Amino acid sequence: MVEPAIPHIGIGGLVRVRLDLAYDGTAFAGWARQPGQRTVQGVLETALSTVLRLDSAPMLTVAGRTDAGVHARGQVCHVDLTPATWGDVGRTAGEDPGPGVVLVRKLGGLLPPDVRVRRASVAPAGFDARFAALARRYAYRIADDVASSDPLRRHFVARHPRPLDAAAMDAAAAGLLGEHDFAAYCRRRDGGTTIRTLLRLRCDRVGDGTLHVDVEADAFCHQMVRSLVGALVAVGDGRRLVDWPASLLRARQRESAVTVMPAKGLTLEEVRYPPDDQILARTLQTRAVRKLGVPQ
Amino acid sequence: MVEPAIPHIGIGGLVRVRLDLAYDGTAFAGWARQPGQRTVQGVLETALSTVLRLDSAPMLTVAGRTDAGVHARGQVCHVDLTPATWGDVGRTAGEDPGPGVVLVRKLGGLLPPDVRVRRASVAPAGFDARFAALARRYAYRIADDVASSDPLRRHFVARHPRPLDAAAMDAAAAGLLGEHDFAAYCRRRDGGTTIRTLLRLRCDRVGDGTLHVDVEADAFCHQMVRSLVGALVAVGDGRRLVDWPASLLRARQRESAVTVMPAKGLTLEEVRYPPDDQILARTLQTRAVRKLGVPQ
Repeated sequence: MVEPAIPHIGIGGLVRVRLDLAYDGTAFAGWARQPGQRTVQGVLETALSTVLRLDSAPMLTVAGRTDAGVHARGQVCHVDLTPATWGDVGRTAGEDPGPGVVLVRKLGGLLPPDVRVRRASVAPAGFDARFAALARRYAYRIADDVASSDPLRRHFVARHPRPLDAAAMDAAAAGLLGEHDFAAYCRRRDGGTTIRTLLRLRCDRVGDGTLHVDVEADAFCHQMVRSLVGALVAVGDGRRLVDWPASLLRARQRESAVTVMPAKGLTLEEVRYPPDDQILARTLQTRAVRKLGVPQ
Repeated sequence: MVEPAIPHIGIGGLVRVRLDLAYDGTAFAGWARQPGQRTVQGVLETALSTVLRLDSAPMLTVAGRTDAGVHARGQVCHVDLTPATWGDVGRTAGEDPGPGVVLVRKLGGLLPPDVRVRRASVAPAGFDARFAALARRYAYRIADDVASSDPLRRHFVARHPRPLDAAAMDAAAAGLLGEHDFAAYCRRRDGGTTIRTLLRLRCDRVGDGTLHVDVEADAFCHQMVRSLVGALVAVGDGRRLVDWPASLLRARQRESAVTVMPAKGLTLEEVRYPPDDQILARTLQTRAVRKLGVPQ
């Protein structure tokens, strides 16, 4: 992958670099930097400042602010660098495969094994990891049968002690699709709207017997995925009727009957962006509409 | 699953119980009990003696004696219990789903999370976890591209620093199939034959970009799978020609040019047994033919 000789210069003369990354959330106190805590943002910002020889840690903007213990395979963030800093990344290597390849290689040598930067590239005009995103897709994985329990996957598959009816859960999920106020399913943060558009919510058994919940929305409010899955699980093990999860949408505040599922079963699988020529329009539109929202 | 009222009584009046299990080998010094080491056999025998209230740990016989760091999803072992011990397992529970279900449940509460017994059942007549097996199937997983590296799977996927040509590896693999003396690929143990029948050896890319080596044989000698994969990897990254792995079969001793791949990429996926009515014949045949062999 060869970067263009003159990378795109953005606001303030800086180069906006997109980082695609994956992490095992087990030993992280979530994405967001917090004093005295090991967080993905903290570890990554520190590694970047070392690799790029910066005086202070650069600030990362992320697509999905995952909670403590939540994993990611398709996380996206961006960082703004001076053209000199970006251009210098490649020059220290013998051959010159471009700054993106060299940055990934150097980060690979420095980052701990539970976080990997998979790709670094100059972002298209108007790109913003958070506001340009069209949708976030998460997977929630549950093992509900000891006969298919897999110690190799125990770090990212939650355990449920009773057998789940995947078909009933899938039927209940259908009633939640579309644009709704998901207040019942959200841990409120000050001032944020809880209106979201749920684009996909499917429950299936996969090959190894694991129950797999596939969920996609324009954005998620805090703890929304784990709460949605909690409501579906109550249907799956027979404690609630199929129409119960959708009926909670009428509530204007968090519903205490909904169990928030454990973080370890949740993985951010993908962040979707529009084609490059529609990126800027999407960023401006999201900023305007969801100014007060806090996409997860 | 309800066990028959009168379980099969085997040699010496004992009930032979088959255990199907899975483990993350990362923190184990392999299957075989060793003084002062944490081994799967040691942990499982201790847990069984607690659950079954035995005075001394029962002895387990295993299908595939995995090395330190090697994982298993489809491991099988057997243990011989007195009819009284087996019959008493179920009785301590409120309802009576049978000794197998109760034993699995009790072991689940006692075993550490890196080993799970998935099923416990009375074995068919003549069953022997080691000698009745028709074949063992292993998977070896390699990540050779940072763009698809997955921290969530890092415990069971080996890393290779250069891109691998899966098609070349698959072509090289074809030359190894069939019955051969695999001495070049085996760490010798005293007196054992190194003649094995390789039933399957395929190299493919799977969905997430990982390189997957699928290998099955009647049995494997020590370090054979990791050596076979090491020879294929040398082809895959261009250090050796496609016919090199097969050419080594002419050697009558271990070939030092073959790299033994790291344990962490290797998982015992399945042990195959014949139908119940052919079990006894298979056990007797294997015992006779491979009396001196040491199946891995």
